[in-house]
Amino acid sequence: MLLEKIKSPADVKALDIKSLEQLAAEMRTALLKKLSKRGGHVAPNLGFVEGTIALHYVFDSPRDKIVYDVSHQSYSHKMLTGRAQAFLEESHYGDVTGYSEPTESEHDFFMVGHTSTSVSLALGLATARDVLRESGNVIAVIGDGSLSGGEAFEGLDNAGEYATNFIVVVNDNEMSIAENHGGLYKSLAELRTTAGKSENNYFKSLGFDYKYLEQGNDIASLIEIFKSVKNSTRPVVVHLHTQKGRGYSYAEQNREGWHWAAPFNIETSEINWGSGENYGEILGLYLMAKIKSDPKVVVIHSAVPAGIGFYEARRKEAGKQYIDVGIAEEHAVALASGLAKGGAKPIYSTHGTFIQRTYDQLSQDLCANNNPATILVTMSGADGMNDTTHLCIFDIPMLSNIPNLVYLCPTCVEEFKTMADWAIDQTEHPVAIRVPNAVHHRSDIFEKDYSRLNKFKVVHRGERVALIGLGDFYQRAAAVALELRREGIDATLVNPRYASGVDKDLLLELAKTHDVFVTLENGVIEGGFGQKVATALGDTCAKVLVRGLSKEFYDKVSFADLCEKNHLNPSQVAKDVMQLLS
Amino acid sequence: MLLEKIKSPADVKALDIKSLEQLAAEMRTALLKKLSKRGGHVAPNLGFVEGTIALHYVFDSPRDKIVYDVSHQSYSHKMLTGRAQAFLEESHYGDVTGYSEPTESEHDFFMVGHTSTSVSLALGLATARDVLRESGNVIAVIGDGSLSGGEAFEGLDNAGEYATNFIVVVNDNEMSIAENHGGLYKSLAELRTTAGKSENNYFKSLGFDYKYLEQGNDIASLIEIFKSVKNSTRPVVVHLHTQKGRGYSYAEQNREGWHWAAPFNIETSEINWGSGENYGEILGLYLMAKIKSDPKVVVIHSAVPAGIGFYEARRKEAGKQYIDVGIAEEHAVALASGLAKGGAKPIYSTHGTFIQRTYDQLSQDLCANNNPATILVTMSGADGMNDTTHLCIFDIPMLSNIPNLVYLCPTCVEEFKTMADWAIDQTEHPVAIRVPNAVHHRSDIFEKDYSRLNKFKVVHRGERVALIGLGDFYQRAAAVALELRREGIDATLVNPRYASGVDKDLLLELAKTHDVFVTLENGVIEGGFGQKVATALGDTCAKVLVRGLSKEFYDKVSFADLCEKNHLNPSQVAKDVMQLLS
Repeated sequence: MLLEKIKSPADVKALDIKSLEQLAAEMRTALLKKLSKRGGHVAPNLGFVEGTIALHYVFDSPRDKIVYDVSHQSYSHKMLTGRAQAFLEESHYGDVTGYSEPTESEHDFFMVGHTSTSVSLALGLATARDVLRESGNVIAVIGDGSLSGGEAFEGLDNAGEYATNFIVVVNDNEMSIAENHGGLYKSLAELRTTAGKSENNYFKSLGFDYKYLEQGNDIASLIEIFKSVKNSTRPVVVHLHTQKGRGYSYAEQNREGWHWAAPFNIETSEINWGSGENYGEILGLYLMAKIKSDPKVVVIHSAVPAGIGFYEARRKEAGKQYIDVGIAEEHAVALASGLAKGGAKPIYSTHGTFIQRTYDQLSQDLCANNNPATILVTMSGADGMNDTTHLCIFDIPMLSNIPNLVYLCPTCVEEFKTMADWAIDQTEHPVAIRVPNAVHHRSDIFEKDYSRLNKFKVVHRGERVALIGLGDFYQRAAAVALELRREGIDATLVNPRYASGVDKDLLLELAKTHDVFVTLENGVIEGGFGQKVATALGDTCAKVLVRGLSKEFYDKVSFADLCEKNHLNPSQVAKDVMQLLS
Repeated sequence: MLLEKIKSPADVKALDIKSLEQLAAEMRTALLKKLSKRGGHVAPNLGFVEGTIALHYVFDSPRDKIVYDVSHQSYSHKMLTGRAQAFLEESHYGDVTGYSEPTESEHDFFMVGHTSTSVSLALGLATARDVLRESGNVIAVIGDGSLSGGEAFEGLDNAGEYATNFIVVVNDNEMSIAENHGGLYKSLAELRTTAGKSENNYFKSLGFDYKYLEQGNDIASLIEIFKSVKNSTRPVVVHLHTQKGRGYSYAEQNREGWHWAAPFNIETSEINWGSGENYGEILGLYLMAKIKSDPKVVVIHSAVPAGIGFYEARRKEAGKQYIDVGIAEEHAVALASGLAKGGAKPIYSTHGTFIQRTYDQLSQDLCANNNPATILVTMSGADGMNDTTHLCIFDIPMLSNIPNLVYLCPTCVEEFKTMADWAIDQTEHPVAIRVPNAVHHRSDIFEKDYSRLNKFKVVHRGERVALIGLGDFYQRAAAVALELRREGIDATLVNPRYASGVDKDLLLELAKTHDVFVTLENGVIEGGFGQKVATALGDTCAKVLVRGLSKEFYDKVSFADLCEKNHLNPSQVAKDVMQLLS
C-alpha cells in the first residue's frame, strides 16, 4: 500500500504516474471507508483526489501555499501532508477535523468553513510574500459553486490587477451543493463545451490569464497544466473540469444527495440519516403549503436547500415561487427586500452560521427600508453544527440589535407556525424567526398576532424567582422551575418570544415581587437577549442571572459539555438561584 | 426657465431635444448653486444629468421602476420627479435628502446610501412583477465604482439567469471616489476604447445582453439607446461612458477632489472644509510614518482613502505598502487576515458605517483564525455622518461580540496612538480600534501595553458613584463627575478602554463601595458595552444606568438633539444619578 508510506508531499513527488494513479485509488478507498463510518463531505472530496495529488506533485508545500475554499475538499490534502493515518485507521479518525486547520499542519494556512474566501485569503499570503520580498507560489483552490459568492468576486477582481504570481485553481464539477444558479454558470458551461475557447470568459474579464483542462481527473494532464503555470508572474486561472462523486457510482449519479452524507453502507448506498422529526422536513411541508395557498409567496434560499427540505421534487413543484440565488446571501436579502417592496411575500432562509454573511444587507437594504420580508434562521443554537466555522450561536447579537427588525424565537413547532403565519402576512416589519435545531412540541394555545412588539408571555405566575427562557431554552427554564419547586419556590415562568426587545413594563412589575431573574438563551451571552433584560432591570433591586454561552469560538465541543461548562443545566441554575436567594 | 415647470416626468416627455438640452443646462446650474451652498456629491451628480433626463423621457416612472445605486447621483432624478423646488429655492433646500427616499416620492423605491445594492434591490422588484403577473420595465442604475462590491456581482450573476425584462444602466465615469481598482476596470477600459466590442466583457460572461454608448452625456443618443432596450425581455446592460464632474471645469479636472464637497465658491472653486484638526489628517500622518519606519506595514482601504488622509500624493509615496481594494470591504478583511498570516502587518481602515459590510469576514476569515490584523473603524459615533444610511452607531454591537476580537476605544488622539502602536506590533490578537469623529487631546500618560485584555483604568477613585465613559464619551463622563461634585459627590471615573469585554474584578470590587454605576457610550445601547457592565453587576446590589442611543435608524437628527433625547447631557445624567441615590 502506497498511502501508508506518504508522510509528506516529498513522498508524492517520488512516485511515477502509474503509482500516483494507484495512490489515487487507495485514497478514494480510504475516503469512502472513513466517510461511510463517520459521515462527511463525500462527493466534493471524491472529485478532487487527482487534483490534490497533482498539486502536491508539482508544487512545494508549504513553501508554495495552497488555500482551499470551504475546505470540504481538503481531505486528500490532509492525507498527503502527514495525516494519512487519520483516514486509514478507525481509531485515528478523530485526529483531524473536516476542514483545513492550521493547528494540525504547517500545510494548512487557515481554518475555513464558509465559502468564497480562498481567493482573498490567498491573495493576502501572496501580497505578504511580495511586500516581504519572499518567493514561492500561492495557489487558491475554489469550486465552481463558491464562485457565486461576492467575496470570491471581490478577491478575483483585486487579484486581476496585480502583475505577480497568483494561481487560482477552479475545481469545476458543474455543481454547487445543489445545481448551480447564476448567469456565470452558463458561461462556465460554454467554456467546458469549447475546451476553454468561448468568448465569454469571466476570468479574463477580471484580468486573469486562463488555462482549461477537460480531463480534470487525469493525473498526468493535471501535472502538465500545473507545471505550465508554476512560477507564473501573472495571475492565472486553471479551470479544471472534474467529476463530483467520482469513483463511487451512487455519488456520481446523485451528486446533490452525496454532497454531504451521514454514515452509510458503501455496498447498498443506504445512508443512516437518523430517525425522528427534523426542521428541514417541517419547513419543507410548511413552506410548500404556503406556496400553494398564496401566489405572492416566494421562497428564497442560498444554495443549501436541504435546510428547508427543498429537495429536487419540491423545488420543481414550487416553480417560480422558489429561487435559489446561489451562495449569495447578501443578494438574497436585498432581493427579498425588493420583492417585499414590489408586493410579494418573500421568505428567505439560511442557517444561523451563514446569516452572518449578510449583516449590512439586513441593516441597509432590508431594515432601514422597513420592508416586510421574512427571514428564517435555521439550525440555530449550540446543539446543531459544532465546528468552529459552523457555529450557530452568534445570530442573536447580530440580528437583535438591528433597528426595525423583529426577531422572534419560537419555543416549539406549533409556535413557530403561528409566528411564521403572522410574519409572512403582515406588512409592517421585517421579521426574522429563529428556527431551532431540536424539535419540540407544546400544546399551549399561541396568539396569532405578534404586532404588539416585545410583549412577553407569562406562562406561569409565581413569586420571588422569574425564569425567562428564550426560544428552545424555554424548555430549560421550565425544567429549572421544576427543580426550584422541589426547593419550595414557586417560580414565574416567562416565554419572551422576542429576542429583539424586552417587555420593560412587565419586568418592572415583576421586579416588585421577584428578587431574582434568570434569562436562558441558546447562544452567546454577549450582545444577546439576557443582557437587555439585565439592563432593563439595572436600576431596580432585582438580581439578574444571564445564562447562555460565553463568547468563544468553540470547536467540536459537545452540547452537553457546553451546557455543563456554562452552568446551563437546570440543576446548576437552580443551585445558583438558591444561593442568590440565601 | 424650463426646470421650474417640470412637475413630473410627463413634463420631460413633452420637450424636444433642444429643450431637453436647455433643461440639462438649467439643472446643472441649479445643482451647482445648491451644492455650493450646502455641500454634497458634486461630480457624480454632474455626470448623470443627461442620463437621468433620457431615462425619464423614455421610461414611465413610477410604473417603470428606476433604482439608483448609492443614490448620490439621484439629485437630477429628484428634480424631474416633482422636487425641483428643493434645488431652485434656497429656503427649500432642506426639503429633500441627499439620497433616494421613498417617503419623499413614489418615484423613489428604496432608501439607499451604501454601494453595490441597486441590482439586487431592482431584481427583487422585477421578480415581484413577474410573480404577481404585472408589467413594466425595471432599471437598475449603477456606477462603475460600485461594480467592485460583491453584492453587485451576486445580483448581476443571479439576474443573468432570468429570461425577463431587467435593464442595468452602467454609468461609467471611469472613477470610483478615487481611481478604480480591480482587474475588471481594465476590461471596462477596453470596452470603452473598442466602443463595446472587446472580447473581455464581464457583463456578457454573467449572461447579460450588452449595449455600449460612448456619448453618455448626449441626450439624443441616450434616448435612442434606452428606447432600444425598453420592454426588453432579456437582462441587458446599457454601458454609458459619462463624464464625472461634467460642466464644472474644476470638477472635470479634479474628479476625486470634487466627488463630495463642503460648501464652495463656484467662481474660485474654493471649498470651505472648515478649520480645526480632523482624524483624516491625523491618521494620514500616523500611518505614513508607520509605513516609512516598517516595511512590513501594509495599509488597506476600500475606496474612501480620504478617510485616512491618503490623498494622491500620499498614496504614491506609500507605494506597495498601500492597497486600495475598491469598494470591497469583505475582501479587504480577508486580505488583511492573509497578510497577517503571511507575516506582514496589515492595517485596514473603513468608516463605522461601512464596517457593517464585512461581518462574516471579521468573524470567520479574521477572528476564527485569530490573525493579528489591525482594523481602524473611523468616524465612529453619532456626532459624524447623520443620514440614516451612514450612521456610525452600530459598530460596538457588531464588533464587540465577535470572539477573539479586541475592540479598543481611545479617549483621545494620544491614546489612539499608543493603542495603534500596540495593535500593529503585537501578534496575538486581531485588534479593532474605534476612531472617533471628534478630535480630543489629553495629557495623561497612557500605557503602552494592552495585552492584559479588558483591564479598565480607574482615572480617579471616589465613592458611591462610578462613571464609566467609553472612548470619546470619557470626556462626557468627566463632565458628569464635575456636575456631581457640585452635589457633593466624589465620583469614581473610569476609562474602560476595551469595548469587547469588562473588567469584572474591578467592577465587583467597586460594587462594594459604589451604589450607582453609569456607563456612557457613543453608539446604540442594545448589544453594546454598557449592557455588558449591567450584566456583570447583575447579581450585586449596585444599580446601573446604561446610557447611549436607543436602537433606531435616526435620520438627520443633530447630535445635540440625540444627546438630549437619550439623556446623555452631563446635567441630565447627574440629575438621574442623584435621583437614584436619594
